Amino acid sequence: MRTRNKPWAKEKMMEYPQYFVHDPELKKGKWHEVFGNDHPIHIEVGTGKGRFVTGMAQENPTINYIGIELSESVIVMALDRLIDADLPNVKLLNINAADLANFFEKGDVSRVYLNFSDPWPKNRHEKRRLTFSMFLDLYKGLLMDEGEIHFKTDNQGLFEYSLQSFSAYGLLLTYVSLDLHKSDFEGNIMTEYEEKFSRKGQRIYRCEVRYPANS
Amino acid sequence: MRTRNKPWAKEKMMEYPQYFVHDPELKKGKWHEVFGNDHPIHIEVGTGKGRFVTGMAQENPTINYIGIELSESVIVMALDRLIDADLPNVKLLNINAADLANFFEKGDVSRVYLNFSDPWPKNRHEKRRLTFSMFLDLYKGLLMDEGEIHFKTDNQGLFEYSLQSFSAYGLLLTYVSLDLHKSDFEGNIMTEYEEKFSRKGQRIYRCEVRYPANS
Repeated sequence: MRTRNKPWAKEKMMEYPQYFVHDPELKKGKWHEVFGNDHPIHIEVGTGKGRFVTGMAQENPTINYIGIELSESVIVMALDRLIDADLPNVKLLNINAADLANFFEKGDVSRVYLNFSDPWPKNRHEKRRLTFSMFLDLYKGLLMDEGEIHFKTDNQGLFEYSLQSFSAYGLLLTYVSLDLHKSDFEGNIMTEYEEKFSRKGQRIYRCEVRYPANS
Repeated sequence: MRTRNKPWAKEKMMEYPQYFVHDPELKKGKWHEVFGNDHPIHIEVGTGKGRFVTGMAQENPTINYIGIELSESVIVMALDRLIDADLPNVKLLNINAADLANFFEKGDVSRVYLNFSDPWPKNRHEKRRLTFSMFLDLYKGLLMDEGEIHFKTDNQGLFEYSLQSFSAYGLLLTYVSLDLHKSDFEGNIMTEYEEKFSRKGQRIYRCEVRYPANS
């Protein structure tokens, strides 16, 4: 997502320590302390403007959510939304997904959400796709046993690639919809992007995969 | 496919032993003798009017094809097509897919094609779908090690179901297209049904899966 640079972004984030985790490297293995309870933790990798993670947190008060976003200029918009919603069960993290292992350890997280991730359509950029095997390794390193990835996208090529990548990695496909908005799936929370593109008649693809036990 | 009953169908099939295998139970483990060579054998389960299997045989003279179809009234249409094409590398079998194990043994076949199989959309009919686990067992019982299933359909629900069924069975997804006719897949041979429905703008879904080694 391209947005104007916001030099004040970092400063604003510092003003809201209840929503924004500044020192995530110190929270590794201690994320339940951050939330003050033992509820399961779900993370969204690439949280954008935060509509999904905020909506999910409102609908599911007994789940803790962490929205991860690399862009400072974007994550401050998620912060604004969170300030308005005033939710105790969402935190935001301004980190690179490739560095997840610095901030989480095995078992910290029970579900990873990937929503409308950058498709990186060129073959030579395969390694940047958030469903590339290296990222599946990273998620495995922070998920509980039999942890899940829930993935949705409007990008046909990325979805095709991801189904194959999940299969090659040995993940079990437990749900798939090739037209989410016409399916009987309940409780879908749309992202900003999803609403815009589905209005144009674009199909949304969605799947859930599970890591095998003791993986 | 509903067609008028053709009482003369069986008689006609008997007239063309070079295309129609009358005593398949005697061929178990000996299919290469039927073709008189050691070329790989691919079977199509539900061959309908035979356009796919005939087209594939024309394009791939070093592959042997067996078209399997339960309906006598339909398989005689495939026979007509085969008589016209005069191909040495196609045979037809008028058997029920559920009985495959009576006619083939492990290693007889290197690929199974499933094209536009009956979707059986009701949950209570799941066991009749040709991608149900029981059928995956049957195919395993006749395929060579690392044998493949190549599957295409216009039915979204059947495709979604099948991806999950393949995954639960431990098959490796090696190819997937969610819009075959707009993809760069080469060498697609259309079935009668495929041509009709894709003309109406219907998407065609296609995938390839592989059984694990030593399965």
